[in-house]
Amino acid sequence: MQRCLTVTVARHSRLLAHRAVSVRQAAAMSSLLISQPKYSWLKELGLSEDNHGVYNGTWGGSGEVVTSYCPANNEPIARVRQATMAEYEETIQKSREAWKVWAEVSRANAPKRGEIVRQIGDALRKKIKVLGSLVSLEMGKIYVEGVGEVQEYVDVCDYAVGLSRMIGGPILPSERPGHALIEQWNPVGLVGIITAFNFPVAVYAEVLEQNNLPGAICSMTCGGADIGTAMAKDERVDLLSFTGSTHVGKMVAMMVQERFGRQLLELGGNNAIIVFEDADLNLVVPSAVFASVGTAGQRCTTTRRLMLHESVHDTVVERVAKAYKQVRIGDPWDRNTLYGPLHTKQAVEQYLAAIEKAKQQGGTLICGGKVMDRAGNYVEPTIITGLPHDASIVQTETFVPILYVLKFKTEDEAFAWNNEVKQGLSSSIFTKDMGRVFRWLGPKGSDCGIVNVNIPTSGAEIGGAFGGEKHTGGGRESGSDSWKQYMRRSTCTINYSKDLPLAQGIKFE
Amino acid sequence: MQRCLTVTVARHSRLLAHRAVSVRQAAAMSSLLISQPKYSWLKELGLSEDNHGVYNGTWGGSGEVVTSYCPANNEPIARVRQATMAEYEETIQKSREAWKVWAEVSRANAPKRGEIVRQIGDALRKKIKVLGSLVSLEMGKIYVEGVGEVQEYVDVCDYAVGLSRMIGGPILPSERPGHALIEQWNPVGLVGIITAFNFPVAVYAEVLEQNNLPGAICSMTCGGADIGTAMAKDERVDLLSFTGSTHVGKMVAMMVQERFGRQLLELGGNNAIIVFEDADLNLVVPSAVFASVGTAGQRCTTTRRLMLHESVHDTVVERVAKAYKQVRIGDPWDRNTLYGPLHTKQAVEQYLAAIEKAKQQGGTLICGGKVMDRAGNYVEPTIITGLPHDASIVQTETFVPILYVLKFKTEDEAFAWNNEVKQGLSSSIFTKDMGRVFRWLGPKGSDCGIVNVNIPTSGAEIGGAFGGEKHTGGGRESGSDSWKQYMRRSTCTINYSKDLPLAQGIKFE
Amino acid sequence: MQRCLTVTVARHSRLLAHRAVSVRQAAAMSSLLISQPKYSWLKELGLSEDNHGVYNGTWGGSGEVVTSYCPANNEPIARVRQATMAEYEETIQKSREAWKVWAEVSRANAPKRGEIVRQIGDALRKKIKVLGSLVSLEMGKIYVEGVGEVQEYVDVCDYAVGLSRMIGGPILPSERPGHALIEQWNPVGLVGIITAFNFPVAVYAEVLEQNNLPGAICSMTCGGADIGTAMAKDERVDLLSFTGSTHVGKMVAMMVQERFGRQLLELGGNNAIIVFEDADLNLVVPSAVFASVGTAGQRCTTTRRLMLHESVHDTVVERVAKAYKQVRIGDPWDRNTLYGPLHTKQAVEQYLAAIEKAKQQGGTLICGGKVMDRAGNYVEPTIITGLPHDASIVQTETFVPILYVLKFKTEDEAFAWNNEVKQGLSSSIFTKDMGRVFRWLGPKGSDCGIVNVNIPTSGAEIGGAFGGEKHTGGGRESGSDSWKQYMRRSTCTINYSKDLPLAQGIKFE
Amino acid sequence: MQRCLTVTVARHSRLLAHRAVSVRQAAAMSSLLISQPKYSWLKELGLSEDNHGVYNGTWGGSGEVVTSYCPANNEPIARVRQATMAEYEETIQKSREAWKVWAEVSRANAPKRGEIVRQIGDALRKKIKVLGSLVSLEMGKIYVEGVGEVQEYVDVCDYAVGLSRMIGGPILPSERPGHALIEQWNPVGLVGIITAFNFPVAVYAEVLEQNNLPGAICSMTCGGADIGTAMAKDERVDLLSFTGSTHVGKMVAMMVQERFGRQLLELGGNNAIIVFEDADLNLVVPSAVFASVGTAGQRCTTTRRLMLHESVHDTVVERVAKAYKQVRIGDPWDRNTLYGPLHTKQAVEQYLAAIEKAKQQGGTLICGGKVMDRAGNYVEPTIITGLPHDASIVQTETFVPILYVLKFKTEDEAFAWNNEVKQGLSSSIFTKDMGRVFRWLGPKGSDCGIVNVNIPTSGAEIGGAFGGEKHTGGGRESGSDSWKQYMRRSTCTINYSKDLPLAQGIKFE
Repeated sequence: MQRCLTVTVARHSRLLAHRAVSVRQAAAMSSLLISQPKYSWLKELGLSEDNHGVYNGTWGGSGEVVTSYCPANNEPIARVRQATMAEYEETIQKSREAWKVWAEVSRANAPKRGEIVRQIGDALRKKIKVLGSLVSLEMGKIYVEGVGEVQEYVDVCDYAVGLSRMIGGPILPSERPGHALIEQWNPVGLVGIITAFNFPVAVYAEVLEQNNLPGAICSMTCGGADIGTAMAKDERVDLLSFTGSTHVGKMVAMMVQERFGRQLLELGGNNAIIVFEDADLNLVVPSAVFASVGTAGQRCTTTRRLMLHESVHDTVVERVAKAYKQVRIGDPWDRNTLYGPLHTKQAVEQYLAAIEKAKQQGGTLICGGKVMDRAGNYVEPTIITGLPHDASIVQTETFVPILYVLKFKTEDEAFAWNNEVKQGLSSSIFTKDMGRVFRWLGPKGSDCGIVNVNIPTSGAEIGGAFGGEKHTGGGRESGSDSWKQYMRRSTCTINYSKDLPLAQGIKFE
Repeated sequence: MQRCLTVTVARHSRLLAHRAVSVRQAAAMSSLLISQPKYSWLKELGLSEDNHGVYNGTWGGSGEVVTSYCPANNEPIARVRQATMAEYEETIQKSREAWKVWAEVSRANAPKRGEIVRQIGDALRKKIKVLGSLVSLEMGKIYVEGVGEVQEYVDVCDYAVGLSRMIGGPILPSERPGHALIEQWNPVGLVGIITAFNFPVAVYAEVLEQNNLPGAICSMTCGGADIGTAMAKDERVDLLSFTGSTHVGKMVAMMVQERFGRQLLELGGNNAIIVFEDADLNLVVPSAVFASVGTAGQRCTTTRRLMLHESVHDTVVERVAKAYKQVRIGDPWDRNTLYGPLHTKQAVEQYLAAIEKAKQQGGTLICGGKVMDRAGNYVEPTIITGLPHDASIVQTETFVPILYVLKFKTEDEAFAWNNEVKQGLSSSIFTKDMGRVFRWLGPKGSDCGIVNVNIPTSGAEIGGAFGGEKHTGGGRESGSDSWKQYMRRSTCTINYSKDLPLAQGIKFE
Repeated sequence: MQRCLTVTVARHSRLLAHRAVSVRQAAAMSSLLISQPKYSWLKELGLSEDNHGVYNGTWGGSGEVVTSYCPANNEPIARVRQATMAEYEETIQKSREAWKVWAEVSRANAPKRGEIVRQIGDALRKKIKVLGSLVSLEMGKIYVEGVGEVQEYVDVCDYAVGLSRMIGGPILPSERPGHALIEQWNPVGLVGIITAFNFPVAVYAEVLEQNNLPGAICSMTCGGADIGTAMAKDERVDLLSFTGSTHVGKMVAMMVQERFGRQLLELGGNNAIIVFEDADLNLVVPSAVFASVGTAGQRCTTTRRLMLHESVHDTVVERVAKAYKQVRIGDPWDRNTLYGPLHTKQAVEQYLAAIEKAKQQGGTLICGGKVMDRAGNYVEPTIITGLPHDASIVQTETFVPILYVLKFKTEDEAFAWNNEVKQGLSSSIFTKDMGRVFRWLGPKGSDCGIVNVNIPTSGAEIGGAFGGEKHTGGGRESGSDSWKQYMRRSTCTINYSKDLPLAQGIKFE
Repeated sequence: MQRCLTVTVARHSRLLAHRAVSVRQAAAMSSLLISQPKYSWLKELGLSEDNHGVYNGTWGGSGEVVTSYCPANNEPIARVRQATMAEYEETIQKSREAWKVWAEVSRANAPKRGEIVRQIGDALRKKIKVLGSLVSLEMGKIYVEGVGEVQEYVDVCDYAVGLSRMIGGPILPSERPGHALIEQWNPVGLVGIITAFNFPVAVYAEVLEQNNLPGAICSMTCGGADIGTAMAKDERVDLLSFTGSTHVGKMVAMMVQERFGRQLLELGGNNAIIVFEDADLNLVVPSAVFASVGTAGQRCTTTRRLMLHESVHDTVVERVAKAYKQVRIGDPWDRNTLYGPLHTKQAVEQYLAAIEKAKQQGGTLICGGKVMDRAGNYVEPTIITGLPHDASIVQTETFVPILYVLKFKTEDEAFAWNNEVKQGLSSSIFTKDMGRVFRWLGPKGSDCGIVNVNIPTSGAEIGGAFGGEKHTGGGRESGSDSWKQYMRRSTCTINYSKDLPLAQGIKFE
């Protein structure tokens, strides 16, 4: 899920650029993919063997060098030189200066912001294929997902253009003669974003510079925990947005709360599909497969728990397992591939450990369970049945393609199991029963931020608010009134009369 | 500011009842005010010498006994026996059970909730004078403020009745054929409220019982830090609302964040009035007096900083000081009184300490500065000039009637000073310049939650959202979309077709 | 459906008072019901043998005398002396004067309007039983409906109280520096209402007078077509609301359009229930009976067409017919009665004529069809099958309890038949198929203003907007944003800067 | 003001294409401008000597031939062959067929509509200069206005893209257990637009065809009163939008009301600027000049009445008159020109007649008043003082550049004069007094749809709703919730339970 551009384009901080990398030791050797003719398209994006990890109007970076590896073959793609703490400090200062310019733009001319966002969206639209390919190469997402991710980005830009002429509070009736009561929304200030993976800062930079706006309106500092911690604690960062694990998210949240900053958390999910006895299995099977093996189980909205009514349990397990075996595994950039590698070697280890635990806790391996015998971080998509709903491994989000199948008897039971995990991101039921659908949507139904019916847990639309409750962090991005998280509200009363009616009828002087 | 009843009526927890008390040693002696004929009206409220500090459907309390003293004379009013931890536990359990019933009411019949709230409002309306008198006696607010506080409560009830047929999310256009995209809002669950002072739980109880609803829908456990801490850490409390100091608020917030709970904080303010050269001084003077000495400087929205343009500085100081001297000081329940006591003896000490610090930091005492020679916690309303805007005492919220007068030269300077304190609750300018008014409302104007023009910092209307930014905690209560804080949002997608269009055009099985 | 009080309480004109009457020749004889001890409760409402037909701050009426008859026995209840044209003129003038006062109330203090409406609601709540009885006696509605009608009124008042602190437009982002863009809503002015039947003006008058407001804020002039025509053509009437037949509604609409006035029409309906093969017949049967015989077929939302899928046609006809025979017919004020008389003798004639036509066009009488052998305008509730969907009598709204049963084969056919009539008020389907439900709600589903699923065509809630499309007139009352019909919108741009950026970059002078 | 594309792109009818023309006798001679090398750029737009006046998927036109003349020189530009009634009939039929396809798009995939609109906006953006030039050549607007008009169009498209993911009603709380209450908005159906001047249908056609959608989604039939009347009376046209004179607008409105169709009227204005004693004259003078002579006085929002406080009357008249003399008159396509011709010869006659009447009624000519001695329909921009505010010529909208200057004494007087004309489109005050500003916005202020402060009457932004009250017709276009006029609302209640709680507690069967 890309984040709402309405206002975030504006401010900010540690955006990992499209040249961003995961933190590993620098590749000493010279055989970088970018130097191979096959990957020369990377240069269309302005990348080279050594890349800058800082942007704040000018490109820089003089810290540690890290290398980005392709998860499909563990070959090094290119190197990035990260930010030092001094560069972080410089970047924040330049961002604050840039904010003054940008605030003037928005104060003077809110729809002008929209125009900048429109141009960014158009610039992304033009590069959609090559950006999609980069996502595929560096993250291991299959090509159609890589392109889809950029498309979602573009859609959010288009959406934000419209929003730029709409956002605002109501004028409310005042109970006092000669007074106007107005709800005013202003941009919150400097927004810091701690995010993993790609973020196409270079495109922002291009557009900002073309419009004679300071590039530092959208800065970036690649770095590790030191930079992240600095941002979380930095009083100059008015809003801190964090997407990542619940574990790190909690640490960030505590640091931000300590200084009464604002935070926007998009953390983990332990998402379930519930299949009732009256479900259309022709919808269930592709949904379950798509949502559990898509992106190799590495979406925040991946289905991790498949709850099956006892009457359809065996049938569905059989059909899903059969489908699993037909999933085309291969290089993510190959247009035929449906399933790529895990993102890191550590994820492979977590995969193996989770399978071991699941067995210990009573699980039965229906399919998968092994690391694949090929280059890159490939593991078999895995189905495990027979675990109790409250087994500790079932209650844990492991960010890999393991699907736990649970058998239930009643609606109440299934809804309760859905809600008993710590996270509250996404959830689905499959049923034809309208009464059940509305119960599912109601106060005793799903406690998640995303509540689906007859579609899987993944695949949200940008028009709605995206995010989840409980340990998922509570943040909302994209549509509906998510823009309010990037704004602050003032309740304004203007006395335009010559009298002063004091509250509660009190008279002074 | 009373809190929004739309949904809070529902759930609950540590509500200090109308028999609530501040925590002090129990009064051993028998001469309680309640036993004196003059205060026999307290019995209309069902109070007696010894009162229950727990309500959860039945009244109880077997913990420490505390005595409530009248701040106007430090006489004991009555005693309350607080909750033990076991009673807290029992209350939470009964509240959770009650929630199941109440959720069924709201799920089945949302406007039915409105009807209950309407009855509560009507019950309060009938008791408005005697409840107002109790506020006056126990808190030291002047009578008209005491009644005004209850009236505000009643108004919020009326408002919430209307709201009960309106709240809900939009239906959004889906980009997928045969899909409906719906934003559903459900009540958040059990709401805990840590609040000081009065809270008329008995009225709730009456109404709930008349409607055959469990009284535990609105429970109360009087207690100290132990009960408060338990609530903050309790995973069964879905939302924790805290009104009080920034210091305690931060501790509460950290405990709630630690468990990824929801919080709603209404903390301190260090509110300024800015008077420009073109201001109508006939509005300025009563505003400044009302907002700085009203409630003896003990409102969260009290004006603590009065910034005067150099051209009007001396005139305004003189006129305000003159008005200060005419403020009628007396028993708060006396209808002529405009100024009553501080709430506790500790506050008197804080008052003296603040004056001492202000002098050390360069301040000049214009009027006030002394404890008054009469029974009760009375101190003189105080004006101090000559301090630098960034003096540490000026930057500190001391919850007493001391007004720091600052002299400024330019609009930019004044706006910057307004924003440089940690808190962000309320703020006012006095001017006739429309350009300035809109700059004040804009992104480079006030950073507070309440932004006024030609009225003082206190005295909000219930139709707007009440609350502040930064160290004020960020919570919003009462009007506008404040109800969303008591609800949780689900973004729901319903596939009502027979097809499954997967995101990003992927095809499975 | 009562009309929204949010703003209409304000203005005014030809409200038939609770002493209102239908226009017939004056009863010469003395044996009025009101003079009988059994009906002495009518005097609680301030009624007497001869009543005033004009209110505009004072009560008057010197025009034609009409007598109100009880439709259950055709006995005269009491007499009303209607307005002359001179009294109409005086009333409008006094209303315009009153408007100036009331506009000042709303401008000064919008929530004050809410408080007046709250008091009106409370006054109605106190008289609910006796007002409900009057409805029953004069209109022939059964008692529970009479009371229900007043309850709905009260609910609208409660709703409007909340609304009085909420209504207002947004503040929009301006594309011009130093400009504010605001959408302001103001009350539309004098509202004229042409309505049949009861309208409790006396209650309004009581409340207005207690609040020292001019009674003419809510005036009334009983009269015939002359008064109605005068109102429709009167430029001083800013909004004209008309509830009644499509025939008269069109004439009124043309007169108002001619002068570019505003109109709000609530005209007829020819409402259908569609029963699909998968419907729950336990819901269908009582729904069909309730909606077709309730209020003896004299609701605008009465079901007039019952479309049955061929597979359930015979079963449903049989069960509905059986239920028809069990409907308890009697005096409307008898608590056991479910079915009362037609409102007028003319309606009895229309009933007979319609049955005759239906037979001629091929219809078969399943039950009913005859005038009943008892005092009053009682006719048998009637079911007719076998007519083609496009028979002219089926396409006609006859305001009597005749239900035409149609047999259909496909969803497309049923939806098309639903939409082929001129009116577009209410419509229902009964089904368990979620796909069908959403198709029914969509652009190719029902074209009515009220679109129900598994409930009958009648029985709307006040939180929604009430009204219909096409020949139903297009007006909306009650909930949602219906208040906008009583308001006018201004799009306001305020330049608060010292510069003038002309549109399209043009420079002058 | 371009009309909102949100939904109108969809349906349609009599759009005068970019090859549209005003109705005059066909030019027999061959010397068409389009055939001259200087105007060869017209061919970039696909125009030729003879053009089709019908589009409904294919281009056609076999009716009367009309010639379009350039108002700056009265030379013929090109010829158009208009629609016959048979072609109108065919077009409507094809539009209804196209609607079925398009409704399926919107039902299936609302944001897909947005994508089509986005492409249309982009296509217009690419042709903005040549389209602007055509406007200039054919309408006589100056070049910067011509381009500005197209830019506004493009902005509306961008706005509508965002809207396509947002529009929808609320989900409301139901008072009945097991019921959902939903407000659903669907497109209204076929929209007919009667408009003068240019409408770039060819661009729509291009985009629709590229997307494999029927071109008849956006059809056009050029024609005279016969075609317009047919559309107004045509029951297949669900909404009729008319922009033009009040005189014709009323006839159209009556025809549409007669059939209970929907209408959206944008008729005339008689707009005033009010200048108070405290106004900033540096804003007043360019505003008055821009708004009165811009587009040679032929905007619906042109300032026709300039009300000056007596204290500034003479000064302002003098300065405005001086500025009038500096207005650069010339060929509209010349980039230096600020003032072009009237659109038709009839307008020149109306200009002369109005000046004559004004003199008769007591007016004094300050400047202008004569037809200019050059080719084309050029008249001098004219200022007339000394007329009474209620002179009949002042109360009349004459669509030419005559400005009536009125002298007033009090605010009440000025506001009353503003409101006393029949039209209610646009209005402005110039003042620094904040109290006056809010009174101007309030219920006793301006009764217009557009209410400005310190900017002139013309130059609205697309984010707000555009349109006016009273004889201006009441329609609203562009921003805010104007989209609702192109949609119809259903209030939907879904019973998803197994029970049927009848309204008012009635029990049947």
